[in-house]
Amino acid sequence: MDRKIRVAVVGASGRMGLEVVKTVLSEPDMELVAGVARSTGPVDLGTLVGLAPCGVTMTSDVELAFVESKPDVVVDFTGPHSAFSHTSLAIRHGIRPVMGTTGFTSQDIEELDKQCQEKQIGGIIAPNFSIGAILMMKFAAQASKYFPNLEIIEYHGDQKLDAPSGTSIKTAEMISEVREERRQGNPKEEETIEGSRGGYYNGFRIHSVRLPGIFAQQEVIMAEPGQALKIRHDSYDRAAYMPGVALAVRKVMTYTGMVYGFEHFID
Amino acid sequence: MDRKIRVAVVGASGRMGLEVVKTVLSEPDMELVAGVARSTGPVDLGTLVGLAPCGVTMTSDVELAFVESKPDVVVDFTGPHSAFSHTSLAIRHGIRPVMGTTGFTSQDIEELDKQCQEKQIGGIIAPNFSIGAILMMKFAAQASKYFPNLEIIEYHGDQKLDAPSGTSIKTAEMISEVREERRQGNPKEEETIEGSRGGYYNGFRIHSVRLPGIFAQQEVIMAEPGQALKIRHDSYDRAAYMPGVALAVRKVMTYTGMVYGFEHFID
Amino acid sequence: MDRKIRVAVVGASGRMGLEVVKTVLSEPDMELVAGVARSTGPVDLGTLVGLAPCGVTMTSDVELAFVESKPDVVVDFTGPHSAFSHTSLAIRHGIRPVMGTTGFTSQDIEELDKQCQEKQIGGIIAPNFSIGAILMMKFAAQASKYFPNLEIIEYHGDQKLDAPSGTSIKTAEMISEVREERRQGNPKEEETIEGSRGGYYNGFRIHSVRLPGIFAQQEVIMAEPGQALKIRHDSYDRAAYMPGVALAVRKVMTYTGMVYGFEHFID
Amino acid sequence: MDRKIRVAVVGASGRMGLEVVKTVLSEPDMELVAGVARSTGPVDLGTLVGLAPCGVTMTSDVELAFVESKPDVVVDFTGPHSAFSHTSLAIRHGIRPVMGTTGFTSQDIEELDKQCQEKQIGGIIAPNFSIGAILMMKFAAQASKYFPNLEIIEYHGDQKLDAPSGTSIKTAEMISEVREERRQGNPKEEETIEGSRGGYYNGFRIHSVRLPGIFAQQEVIMAEPGQALKIRHDSYDRAAYMPGVALAVRKVMTYTGMVYGFEHFID
Repeated sequence: MDRKIRVAVVGASGRMGLEVVKTVLSEPDMELVAGVARSTGPVDLGTLVGLAPCGVTMTSDVELAFVESKPDVVVDFTGPHSAFSHTSLAIRHGIRPVMGTTGFTSQDIEELDKQCQEKQIGGIIAPNFSIGAILMMKFAAQASKYFPNLEIIEYHGDQKLDAPSGTSIKTAEMISEVREERRQGNPKEEETIEGSRGGYYNGFRIHSVRLPGIFAQQEVIMAEPGQALKIRHDSYDRAAYMPGVALAVRKVMTYTGMVYGFEHFID
Repeated sequence: MDRKIRVAVVGASGRMGLEVVKTVLSEPDMELVAGVARSTGPVDLGTLVGLAPCGVTMTSDVELAFVESKPDVVVDFTGPHSAFSHTSLAIRHGIRPVMGTTGFTSQDIEELDKQCQEKQIGGIIAPNFSIGAILMMKFAAQASKYFPNLEIIEYHGDQKLDAPSGTSIKTAEMISEVREERRQGNPKEEETIEGSRGGYYNGFRIHSVRLPGIFAQQEVIMAEPGQALKIRHDSYDRAAYMPGVALAVRKVMTYTGMVYGFEHFID
Repeated sequence: MDRKIRVAVVGASGRMGLEVVKTVLSEPDMELVAGVARSTGPVDLGTLVGLAPCGVTMTSDVELAFVESKPDVVVDFTGPHSAFSHTSLAIRHGIRPVMGTTGFTSQDIEELDKQCQEKQIGGIIAPNFSIGAILMMKFAAQASKYFPNLEIIEYHGDQKLDAPSGTSIKTAEMISEVREERRQGNPKEEETIEGSRGGYYNGFRIHSVRLPGIFAQQEVIMAEPGQALKIRHDSYDRAAYMPGVALAVRKVMTYTGMVYGFEHFID
Repeated sequence: MDRKIRVAVVGASGRMGLEVVKTVLSEPDMELVAGVARSTGPVDLGTLVGLAPCGVTMTSDVELAFVESKPDVVVDFTGPHSAFSHTSLAIRHGIRPVMGTTGFTSQDIEELDKQCQEKQIGGIIAPNFSIGAILMMKFAAQASKYFPNLEIIEYHGDQKLDAPSGTSIKTAEMISEVREERRQGNPKEEETIEGSRGGYYNGFRIHSVRLPGIFAQQEVIMAEPGQALKIRHDSYDRAAYMPGVALAVRKVMTYTGMVYGFEHFID
């Protein structure tokens, strides 16, 4: 690679933002050129993440940062409220957006794709940049052609509000596109404790475990007479998402248009 | 041991009975003296289980078998319908019963204990002779003093009718005697798919997985910030119960009275 | 399917042969037309496997069985000694061979492929018909592109003679074709107990666990900062191979030539 | 409890020290009265760990801190070099030492016990304060009476220098005190890749897996025909040790003498 990819990080003081700053500072083919956050004041971004000072000072105005630092790519994990406006702003400045958030309608994505096409740049919107989680989902879907009897067990922290997790539902959807339709279990099955058989999805079951100290884990168990195939992904902390973010930063340099979903980058 | 323990097997052609016959024929301190079953006719019991002929022929009358073969111990897995009468008959003949079945009321057990006391012999009634399952339950209960946040996941074949399993409920009861009472999970937690959080028991959850090819497995997961303790027991087939049956045959020779529950033999 | 696939089983009284007979009798699109074994005498094959009599009697001459029963496919798990001659004989009679054995040289396979081409029939030779094991290997290899840090743990019965298992070595080979070359672990690492770090293969490690009661299990653990991806296959008994054998019986009807390795049938 | 336990933390800016400070500030029955570290300067200890300021400023002289803050208990994770002198100093001031380090000879411990007896105070020295790890070891040892066939698999980060881990060796020792002596595996077993069968310890095997992103995990697998019992402890980060440290702080208030090994506090 002739020159480094110039990267700006918006939301650089958030939990994910801090990890992204660390990642950009560590990747040899990337250069951190700007960090934007409202709350920290003008701190050095290297110092902020516990590394050596890097000479880039946090600023608080996104557009000004774009104009002054001229990034190739912006990584933004600020969340749904500002998602569309931030993405659109980046594209207008010819900066490739890597957006780690939900909250886009399909019209939004269509519109942003048109803007990317006009500017001849790439972009990606993805709720999940975990390569491991995507491989787990792909493998489970592929295997369900041969192993149509399966259940999903997902594990998260005990303060999580919703069950089952977004990843488990996404997995179930991907499996359902491949798996031969069938209702598993004995039709005369009875629960003596309600809910013990888990949540019903398209013929199979999803179980949500909630315990302290667990970040995010999921296992897809597939079984037939005499054998079981188990595909499991354990995330221990936010570092798990960084190889995916780094991959996305590199990939958006190579195509034109807006991609929705990180799975399109994984073969 | 001076002389071998003389063992009769009632229900010797059933799935568990065949395993018991094999076990008694293999244990150096035991002698198979009788096998009783209605359906097989007068076959040699060794041949029946795929071993060398052993010279003991299947008969069909329980009492006659007791009188003629004078066993020290009878192992009986014939099930609830004949449980009380078979046990009582054995005791009357001074034979120590090892009964692998449910279906006894507490009055039944009291009565049978009285009969054992009179005859000065021991006996045991137990729904489960799995040493591994009992260790799992004991350890989970002990650990719940330090790890009060826990969930149980149990796995059985996809044709099982009831959920959760008897073993998981027994485990939950044993844990509840030790564990500090608390309702786990976020109080504002919401299920977007009903049942995904599992069955509620005394503040924690039980999840029942049903898939083809699985005999009986259970995991108790206990977690606190930064760590998880997992205790798991996997049974692949009925052979799993045999070390417990052999232990019971030896133990009933050593005390007087009727014991209910195999856990009393495991320390 | 207009008419059923006519299947002969050679080595029908062996452990795998008995399972194959059961499978052929159960699949609605297959018809058992012959069973060959030296030791059993003229028993009914259905009775032999504990099902209803099927009207096919065991014979002991392979060629005679071929001539009289006119099978479309022969399934043969008799082992390396007779592998080549049995395969060649089947092809000469225009019968598609499904051979579950090792012991073929690459010249053998080339020669048999030529014979298949002449007769315009298909055939397959495979040491392993486990769909689950093949999916595990494929997924592990695919994932190793993104997760180059990995180790393999395989579990077999405590009487197995060789370590590591053939499947784990095959897995390691398939991974090595994809994975970026690197020597894992700290270069200054020291074993205080020799062998604790496992067997070295191409930069990563293979661990062989040997314990009673385990049939065949394997886990590939792949990890990067913050996450782990685990792909595991557990076989409990020979039934695990039967969906693969059934798939092979159907597949050999559809192409011409000799295929080596069951993985070519799994996408 | 009438009044709070006054706690000093020595080595308060180290990785474990920071966790201990957080724990002491969070436990309702404890009061942080001093923090000692060489490198940080006079920072507020609450601020240092990302909590609200607590009014206790870091100092750099251990003895001065003891004199001025009059702690009931000192928690010290500074390591082997200063272990004996720090412990002895604390006892001389009547402060109960909770020492998280190795590096004591048995004479050291005897001497420190005498000093504790004279001052009528309690103390503890322990290389490991993980309640979960200790339960795993205790349960594995107990179960090995019934499950003498077992192997240990331990997982640590890929930069760890020694294999197998200290915890796995401690586990093996505790098992060996209970387990019937026997050499597992087929006596004619052969390794085609050296080391694949793991490290040999007293008849059984220890396997050390080293991969990035893993903090500390261990599984003891015990198996007999038809069943397996698995006891596993996963630590994700240093928070795992804090419930044990808190328990130790409370316990040393209740007895006289020096205890070696945290397992004595767990029943």
